[in-house]
Amino acid sequence: MTRLYFEDAEVGHLRTAGPYLVSKDEIIQFAQKYDPQPFHIDEEAAARSVFAGLTASGAHTFAILISLLSKTQPYSLRVLAGLGWDELRLPTPVRPGDELSLEVTVLEKRESKSSPDRGVMRNQIYLRNQKREIALQCVGSVLVARRPAGLEEKNSEIEK
Amino acid sequence: MTRLYFEDAEVGHLRTAGPYLVSKDEIIQFAQKYDPQPFHIDEEAAARSVFAGLTASGAHTFAILISLLSKTQPYSLRVLAGLGWDELRLPTPVRPGDELSLEVTVLEKRESKSSPDRGVMRNQIYLRNQKREIALQCVGSVLVARRPAGLEEKNSEIEK
Repeated sequence: MTRLYFEDAEVGHLRTAGPYLVSKDEIIQFAQKYDPQPFHIDEEAAARSVFAGLTASGAHTFAILISLLSKTQPYSLRVLAGLGWDELRLPTPVRPGDELSLEVTVLEKRESKSSPDRGVMRNQIYLRNQKREIALQCVGSVLVARRPAGLEEKNSEIEK
Repeated sequence: MTRLYFEDAEVGHLRTAGPYLVSKDEIIQFAQKYDPQPFHIDEEAAARSVFAGLTASGAHTFAILISLLSKTQPYSLRVLAGLGWDELRLPTPVRPGDELSLEVTVLEKRESKSSPDRGVMRNQIYLRNQKREIALQCVGSVLVARRPAGLEEKNSEIEK
């Protein structure tokens, strides 16, 4: 997997990951621990809910987004920490059997003033299902490692 | 547990839940599935990270917030669906042994124009650790059931 530095990502770059197949068992298991609402854990109750069927917890959908974020192609970034998330919306519920894909576009980047070894990057993120409907969209801000002095070649960062 | 309707919650009301004890095992188990960064799953690598120790994935911290949201006192609400999250920040990392508590304050409420059986509520949410440091803060918007016609008494909604 190619993990690049802050310097290597340009505003406008698109990275993608997935698909991630969401099973009914995974939806129920996650929700039983973190979000045991009837419409996330009980198929009959879910049929009577506003969703008319079993749907994944929003926390679960967000966790799937995070799991795909470190697997993007053509490269992923050396993320040091997540800083925050804005305008997080869940327009389409995630249902058993859905296949989710991630699209991440660099919106903005700036070098850290206090720490010369890192920079802040803002990304527009979409998680879409197999019909290209948006399951989750948000703007994410992350701290990314800058390239250490002396490491000039992109190829030198290819690992694994 | 008392689950109230849209009409029963007033702007300014505070609800609380917790504490939720976060174990090292839970941090590692969640991260192995959804966020296998070295600083979430490997104590030695975590010691060398910007966090100087093992920390929970932000997705995990958010899932814990969701798990507490349905357990608030003095009441919880009949939530039909989560709509979105804004200004989500993670100022203090969550570490093994932390005890997290939730504070939810109603910021704003409005009745749905299209569906008379529901309303939209915006809440300011803080998840704090045992030192009262903020682990996660955000503004959450949810769809809440309105009281059915004929159900006038708060007491009639006490269940379980």
